[in-house]
Amino acid sequence: MDNLGKEGKRGVIEVVSKEKITKENLAQIYTPGVAMLVKKVMDNEEAVYDCTWKGNAVAVVSDGSAILGLGNQGPKAALPVMEAKAALFKELAGVNAVPIVLDTQDTEEIVSIVKAISPGFGGINLEDISAPRCFEISRKLEKELDIPVFHDDQYGTAIVVLAGLINAAKIVKKDLKKLEIRISGAGAAGLAIADLLLEEGCNEITLFDSKGAIYEGRTDLNQEKKKIAKITNKTSFKGTLQESLYKADVFIGVSAKNLLTADDIRGMNEDAIVFALANPEPEILPKEALRADNIGIIATGRSDFSNQINNALVFPGIFKGALQNRTVEITNKIKIEIAKALANLIKQPTKDRIISDVVDKGVVPAIVNVFERFYKEHKQ
Amino acid sequence: MDNLGKEGKRGVIEVVSKEKITKENLAQIYTPGVAMLVKKVMDNEEAVYDCTWKGNAVAVVSDGSAILGLGNQGPKAALPVMEAKAALFKELAGVNAVPIVLDTQDTEEIVSIVKAISPGFGGINLEDISAPRCFEISRKLEKELDIPVFHDDQYGTAIVVLAGLINAAKIVKKDLKKLEIRISGAGAAGLAIADLLLEEGCNEITLFDSKGAIYEGRTDLNQEKKKIAKITNKTSFKGTLQESLYKADVFIGVSAKNLLTADDIRGMNEDAIVFALANPEPEILPKEALRADNIGIIATGRSDFSNQINNALVFPGIFKGALQNRTVEITNKIKIEIAKALANLIKQPTKDRIISDVVDKGVVPAIVNVFERFYKEHKQ
Repeated sequence: MDNLGKEGKRGVIEVVSKEKITKENLAQIYTPGVAMLVKKVMDNEEAVYDCTWKGNAVAVVSDGSAILGLGNQGPKAALPVMEAKAALFKELAGVNAVPIVLDTQDTEEIVSIVKAISPGFGGINLEDISAPRCFEISRKLEKELDIPVFHDDQYGTAIVVLAGLINAAKIVKKDLKKLEIRISGAGAAGLAIADLLLEEGCNEITLFDSKGAIYEGRTDLNQEKKKIAKITNKTSFKGTLQESLYKADVFIGVSAKNLLTADDIRGMNEDAIVFALANPEPEILPKEALRADNIGIIATGRSDFSNQINNALVFPGIFKGALQNRTVEITNKIKIEIAKALANLIKQPTKDRIISDVVDKGVVPAIVNVFERFYKEHKQ
Repeated sequence: MDNLGKEGKRGVIEVVSKEKITKENLAQIYTPGVAMLVKKVMDNEEAVYDCTWKGNAVAVVSDGSAILGLGNQGPKAALPVMEAKAALFKELAGVNAVPIVLDTQDTEEIVSIVKAISPGFGGINLEDISAPRCFEISRKLEKELDIPVFHDDQYGTAIVVLAGLINAAKIVKKDLKKLEIRISGAGAAGLAIADLLLEEGCNEITLFDSKGAIYEGRTDLNQEKKKIAKITNKTSFKGTLQESLYKADVFIGVSAKNLLTADDIRGMNEDAIVFALANPEPEILPKEALRADNIGIIATGRSDFSNQINNALVFPGIFKGALQNRTVEITNKIKIEIAKALANLIKQPTKDRIISDVVDKGVVPAIVNVFERFYKEHKQ
C-alpha cells in the first residue's frame, strides 16, 4: 500500500487474465478457439452474456466536468477517481469496472459515445459530470440503451442520504416526513436528494445554490431547478442559507467546503442533523459542528470520519444487483427500497453509527436482495 | 480452464484492484485520498502517467467489421476476440488492455470516439476493422493523437510475416529480396505485408483480392489498392491467383479458407514457402500442403500447428515497448527492426520452427529492446 493515493504508483487497478496462458491453452483461448465464441454470438446475440464479460462489466464514464468538489478539471484529472471507483466495484461487489474518461463536454457527443461503446458493457455508471448536463445525458441514455444507466452522483448519493436520514430521525425521535430540511447545492446530488426525499414523503424542503434559495419565479434557474422550485420551498423563502437554518431540523450539504459554522448550527432546532457531504472537504468539519450544543448527528462523505454518507455504499451493490437480474430501469421505487434496506442494516443506530461502513460485508448483499425481490415480483 | 473458449465462462479477463480495500485504507484509496492524485494532475497534466494506469493501459478497439476470417459481424461478436487479446496483453507483456467494441462503422465517428476516449489510455490497438476503412481510421488517429496507435491486423501481421520469411528464406537458401511473392488478400493485412516487404527490398510481389490480380489500370480498385498496384505486379499479370503461383517462391494468404490445394503448390518453385494465415481456417491446412512434394515451409496463423505466424507475437511487445519508452510513432524502420529481432530469436531455424512461439519468454523483451534502442538513438 504505502504510497498508494500519495504517489500514485501508476494506478490502483489492472486488467488480468482469468487463466495463465500456456502453449497448451493458447489455441483454445486465442485462435482458433475464440472463433467458437464469436460464432455463438453470431448465432444468438444474447450469448454475449455467456461468452464474454459483458454481463459483469461496467463502464465508469466521466468527462471530468465536476470532479469531487474540485470542479471542471477535464478527463485526465478525473481518471484517478474513476480508477478508485473501479477498485471499489471489484473489491466490494466483484464487478469489473473500466474507467472511461472523455475528452469532450458536449452533451450530444457524450450520449453518442456512450451508446457506441455500450455493446461491450452490461451497465453504464456516469460519474462526475456537471449539472445540468448530467440530467440530459442520463435521461437520454436511460431511454436509449438496453442496459442499466446510473449516475452515481445523483441517485447514489440520494439513496445513502435517505438511508442515513431514516436512521438519524429514528435516533433523535423525529418524524422523517415532518423534518424541516435545507439542501445546500442544487446540482446532480442536491436535486436527486430532493427528488427522492419528496418521493418518500418529506415535504418541508428548501434547496440553495450558490446564488441563494431556490424559489418559484427566480429568474436565473435552469429547467431542473425550475421544476424543483415548484414542489419545494413552500413559503417562497428568498433569504440566505444561513438565515434559513433557523428552526430547521436538517442540513444536507452537497456543495462546497467551509460553508457552515457552529454558529449557523446553533440556530437550528434541538438535535440538529448535519450531513456535510462535500468532498474532499466538507461544508463543516465534525470537530467544528460538535461545538454547537444542539448538534444531534454529524455525518460527512469521507471515510476518515464516522457516519460516511457516500455513494460508495450503493454503487457497487446497485450494479451487482442490476447486472445479476438484468434490471434495466432502476426506478425510484427500487431506490427507496435500497435506502430502507441500508438503513435496516443498522439494528441499533447511534449518533456515531447511522449507516454501515462502505466495507461492511452486509451492504452489497442487502442491495442485491432488493433487485432480486423486484425481479421476482416482476416475473410473477 | 476446462470449458474456457467452449462455454465462455463469462469472459477470460477481469479488472482487479491492486490492493485489498479495508476500512483503514479506504480513505487513502478513495475519498479524500484520491483528491491528492486529482490535484497532482491538475497541477501538471503529465502526472497522469504517474498517478493513474494510463502509462500502462491500452484500448483494444474494434467495430466488428472484419472479425478474424468471419467477416462483418458487429461489435458483440467481436468482444470475445478483444477479450482474448486483452488476456494476451497482460499475460505476455504485463500491459493492461481494455476491450472497446463500437456500435458504429462510420469512419469519422470511430475516429472521433477513439479520440474522445484516448485521455484514459496510453495507446490504441485497432483490431478487426475492415479495409479500406481501417487505413483512413489508423492514419487519422496516428496523426491526431499524442499516444501510439497501432492496427494490429495491418502491421502486426506484416512484422511477423517478414520475420517468418527471413528465416524461411534462410532455411531454403534463397535470397529474400529475390523471392517471387504472391499475396492473397488485399485488405488490412495484405497491403501492410506488401508495404513492409517492399520497404525491406522484396520487389517481386503480386497481390490478389477476391476479384483476381491487382494491376495498375484495374478499374475497380480503391485508393489503397491503386497505390500498391503502381509498385507491385511489374508484369501487369491479370490472371488468377492459381495461375500466378506457377514458378512462384512464396504464397502468403491473408484471405479465406480452402483457397489453395496441394496441386496449386505443385506448380510453385522447389522449396515453396506457404504462409496460409487466414483465421480460424487457413487457405490450406498443413496436412494438405505437405502432400505437395515441393513444399518447403508451411505456416499458419493458428496456435495448434507449428510455425504460427500470428500478430500475437508482436502486439504485446510493441505496446510494452512503446508505452515504456513513450514512443508515439511506430515507424516502418522500427517495424523492420522488430521483424529482424524476432527472426534472430531462432538461432537455428528449421522447417518446423521458423519463428518463436507466442508464449516464448524471449519474444516480448526482444521487441521492447528495439524500442529502447530507438529511444536512446533519438535522445542522442
